[in-house]
This record gives sequence, C-alpha cells and structure tokens, in this order.
Amino acid sequence: MIITAEKAANLLLQQDNILVLCHRNPDGDAIGSAFALKKMLQSLGKKVRMECESGIPAKYDVLFGAREDDGDFAPDYVVAVDTADRKLLGTLGQQYPTVNLAVDHHETNKDYAEFTYVEDKAAAAAEVVFKLAPLLGAKLDLRIATALYVGLSTDTGCFVYSNTTANTHIIAGELISYGVNLGEVNKILFETKTKSRVEIDKIALNSLEFFFGGELAFVFLPLSALEASGVSEDDLDGVSAMPRQIEGVKVGITLRERADGSYKASVRTTCVNAADICAKCGGGGHKRAAGCEFKTSFEEAKAALLEAAKQVMDEEE
Amino acid sequence: MIITAEKAANLLLQQDNILVLCHRNPDGDAIGSAFALKKMLQSLGKKVRMECESGIPAKYDVLFGAREDDGDFAPDYVVAVDTADRKLLGTLGQQYPTVNLAVDHHETNKDYAEFTYVEDKAAAAAEVVFKLAPLLGAKLDLRIATALYVGLSTDTGCFVYSNTTANTHIIAGELISYGVNLGEVNKILFETKTKSRVEIDKIALNSLEFFFGGELAFVFLPLSALEASGVSEDDLDGVSAMPRQIEGVKVGITLRERADGSYKASVRTTCVNAADICAKCGGGGHKRAAGCEFKTSFEEAKAALLEAAKQVMDEEE
Repeated sequence: MIITAEKAANLLLQQDNILVLCHRNPDGDAIGSAFALKKMLQSLGKKVRMECESGIPAKYDVLFGAREDDGDFAPDYVVAVDTADRKLLGTLGQQYPTVNLAVDHHETNKDYAEFTYVEDKAAAAAEVVFKLAPLLGAKLDLRIATALYVGLSTDTGCFVYSNTTANTHIIAGELISYGVNLGEVNKILFETKTKSRVEIDKIALNSLEFFFGGELAFVFLPLSALEASGVSEDDLDGVSAMPRQIEGVKVGITLRERADGSYKASVRTTCVNAADICAKCGGGGHKRAAGCEFKTSFEEAKAALLEAAKQVMDEEE
Repeated sequence: MIITAEKAANLLLQQDNILVLCHRNPDGDAIGSAFALKKMLQSLGKKVRMECESGIPAKYDVLFGAREDDGDFAPDYVVAVDTADRKLLGTLGQQYPTVNLAVDHHETNKDYAEFTYVEDKAAAAAEVVFKLAPLLGAKLDLRIATALYVGLSTDTGCFVYSNTTANTHIIAGELISYGVNLGEVNKILFETKTKSRVEIDKIALNSLEFFFGGELAFVFLPLSALEASGVSEDDLDGVSAMPRQIEGVKVGITLRERADGSYKASVRTTCVNAADICAKCGGGGHKRAAGCEFKTSFEEAKAALLEAAKQVMDEEE
C-alpha cells in the first residue's frame, strides 16, 4: 500500500527493534541511505540493525564507517531501502518474508512491502531518507550527512546525470554544511580507477572501430583479456558507457565474450532506440541502454549487431 | 584597490557603455560568468559588449547562445571577469590598457585593475557574478542561469573538485530552478570525448608503466602519435590527470615529446610533493601539480624523473 512521508515516519516512530535492508550488490545510494536511516533511528533510542546480502563494501567503511556491530537481536519491523523488488534483497528476502515498509525512489517499485513510501522524482533514495529526518525528529550529523551525500552523488554520477534536480543540489548543499570532506569523498568515488579498469580501458580502446561515418562505435572484449585483467562487474559497466561518449557517436556497442563461448552485447545510444536494435537480435531493454546475447561465432554476432543498428538508424532518420 | 561586492555593484550601476572582457583560451567559467554579467547589465538598459582574445568557442554558443552581436561602440568602462592577471587578457590587455574593474575568484588576482572585487572562497567566477545580481537589481533568466551553471560546473569538474562548497551547491540549485536543461548541458560538458582525446587515451594506456610497487605511473606521448591524433591542449590536460587516478598511484608522470625535440613532463601527485620532484629537474609548480622540461634524450629524461620521484617519495615517508 502506497503511503506518504508522514505516515512512513509515524510507522517508524512506533517501532523499537528495526531491521534495515538494502538491495544486494549495493551501490553508494543503497548503503548510504540504509546506513543514514539506521543512524537516524538509533539516535531516537531505537535498536536498529542494517543488513545486505552482499555485505558492506570496504569503500563505504572508509567513507563513513559503514560497518558497525549493531547486535544480533530479533527484529519486530523490517524496512527495505532503495529496493524496487523483493528479489533484489537476495536470500534476505527469504529470511525475512515480510517487509513492513519500503522507502524508495524507483518509479518501478513493485509495492511488495506492507507499506510503500516512494518519491519517484528523487534522484536517489538518499533524498527520500533526507526528507524523513525532520518528520522523525532525527538530527543529522557528519556521518549521516556523509552517507547521504555518498548516496546522492553515486546515483547522479556526481550531479551529472539528468535525474539531478534543483532539489538534489539544495540537499547536497545542506549535507555539505555538516562538514563532509568533499575532496576526499569525491576522490574515492569519482577520481579513482582500479588497475583492472585501466586494463579494460586499454583493451576497449585497442579494439575500438567506427562504422557508418563515425556514428557507431564498436568495442570487443575477448575472454582471455578480461580474465587477465581481473575485471569486476562495476568495471564492465563503465566500459560499456565509453563508446557512446565519443563525439559524433549515436550508437555504442560493446561485445563481450563469455566463459561458455557465448557473447553478450551492451548497446548504449544517444538518440537512437537501443531497445529496438537489441530486439532485432532477440534481446531488449531501455531506449538508451539495452542488451542481447549470441550463441554464434564472433563474426556472426558482430555482423548481426551492425545490421540491426543500421536498420534502426535508417528507420529513425 | 580591493573593494566589496556592494561597491562593485555601485560602480557598475553608474556606467552606461561597458566592455566585459575575460581571459584568453577561455573555459566555461570565463565565458559563462562574463556572458551572465553582460546580460544582467543589458537587462538594466545599459549598452554592454563582451570580448575575448580567443573568440567564443562554439560549444558555449550551443549551450546558451554565447555569441551575440553587441554592436561596436566605444566603451567608457572596462570590466575583466575571471582574469587574475592583465597578461591573461592577451592583446585585449594592450588594446584596453585601463581595466576599471576586475570581478574574480582567484586568490592570486594581481589587483591590476582600478578596482578589484575578489571572492577567493568562491569555486568559480560564476559564484561571484551570481552574488552581484541582487546588488545590481538584475533578474536572472534561463540563459543567464545556464551560463552561470556552466561556469560553476566547469570550474568544479561538475561538483567533484575540493573547491566545491555548500554554497556552490545551493547556487546550483537556485540556477537549475530557472529550467536549465541539465541532461543536455552536462552531456556536452562532461560526457563527450573528442575522437582525438580517445586516440590519446589509447596512446597513453599503451605506454603506461608502473614503478616502485605501483606507486608511480609513467606515461609517454611520442610526437608522432600526438601529431597523428590532432590533439588540443584541453585533451593533453585530461591525459596528464589520468595516471594519478589509478588506484595505489602516488605519483603520475606524463612525458610528452615536443616538435623541437625537447620533452615536457607533467607531474601529478596524490600525497607526494610534485613541486619538489620537478625542482630536482629544474622545474616547479604546485604541491599536487608541477612540471619540468628536458633537452636530453628520452631515456635520460625518464631516468631523471624516476630518480627525482624516488628521492622525494623516500624523503617523505
């Protein structure tokens, strides 16, 4: 059942033993917003624990001391933050089959919880948790502000993406006034490349080819190179975004060889329908980001992708 | 003579034929803040023209219609925006030997103008011009807000750099509320790589070597590769920043071969004194960014840089 911010705050105020969950493979917004909500509720004298199927990445411990021993009590109330679908909780979704309250910013939230509070214009769950603070009567402090800033800046690519609003900046300004060490936080989040990411960038740039007068950029990542580089999923996300960023490119395609011999294509576009391109190859997705798979040879996969892209580019002209 | 914001606004209000200058090789803050000040003063019924020795890059015309025909009148009053030193005006500094007012955010401003208004905690000149608006009684509109947003975001690397403050975000929030098309603006400013930049990234990554247990990253850019890529100074700045961004790297060195056979080193560090390293090679600069030149062979230049870096890294431990 969809509820307002006020109702969500009232529900939380009535509880004393609370478990805060966030989605698996958590990013800075999942960890930041869940941690901030936990600390706010703890500051009101409540017993609160935070859990994530994937644990808490070390980076967030460096940033705002995200790993804490919250004790091992049995919770009376389960809150899921930044989690659009119960499935995204992973095994914790089975362990805690009833989620009492979801606090989220995804327009696609499946309303799986008993009560659901969604602000779908918010750029990050951190914005939603920030809005709850005065309703809960919880004061912010440096760690809470840093956690929320990490959430905001993660989900907006540091205020670059088009989900950023005037409100996102106004909230960032208020958070920073608690003394967030912006230089350090942003360096860790946005100015540090792993060595494996550098390796993959090299592989990607060396395989980069242009087609159709420079409007399509094609990158191939062979399995041997990926294995040698020790790549993570995060790194791969970043590489898929690269071809589209090149001046004049409308369609960026990254084709990755997998261990089972199949190929996975990630299509990113600026003004061409990526889902239409991938649909022609048996895949799908969103307008600007879509994917498909091939159990063919590399040459056949590449030819099929170029042909599909050409068709959609010609149709849309 | 150093003056306050109020005094600067009063001086501007007394003038009717104003020339607004900004530094040559202008970035988004130079063009954005000069353009915004021009439009504000024009909105008050004044005749105002904007000039820059290098002209106005096409990008800023796309972003907020920066190129306008302001007429060719003889100005009674010359204002320099975002310009710390008269020399940075280029030939315009000779053409207009008296600068009546400087509006700036550089702590290093040389006080070359008759009157100087500097806010040295401001991340961008755009913040300073924004502060003048209410004192001038000038209303903002979408184009002025976009120009100021471009200034703010350019000088902070889109709110990443440590010069960003709570106030920067609060101003950004207010500017965006005028309807700035954030998605489009940020795509042009921060998510587009030129093809020549992609070429240089490839050259840089293919030459990347690590030394001293991964704490020093070394990149070499041969002249032949630079010439083939059609590189600009902007592109080179970006490449010099790359080695330092790699996880674990304390010193990033980029050595570039020049047309006259000499070599230019750019040293960027995270926690080692870059100026000290370059001083050992006859150069200098800042703590985290410094440079030096070599009229030796490549091998000698590289060996000298590695030796100087090793000494400073050892001393600082």
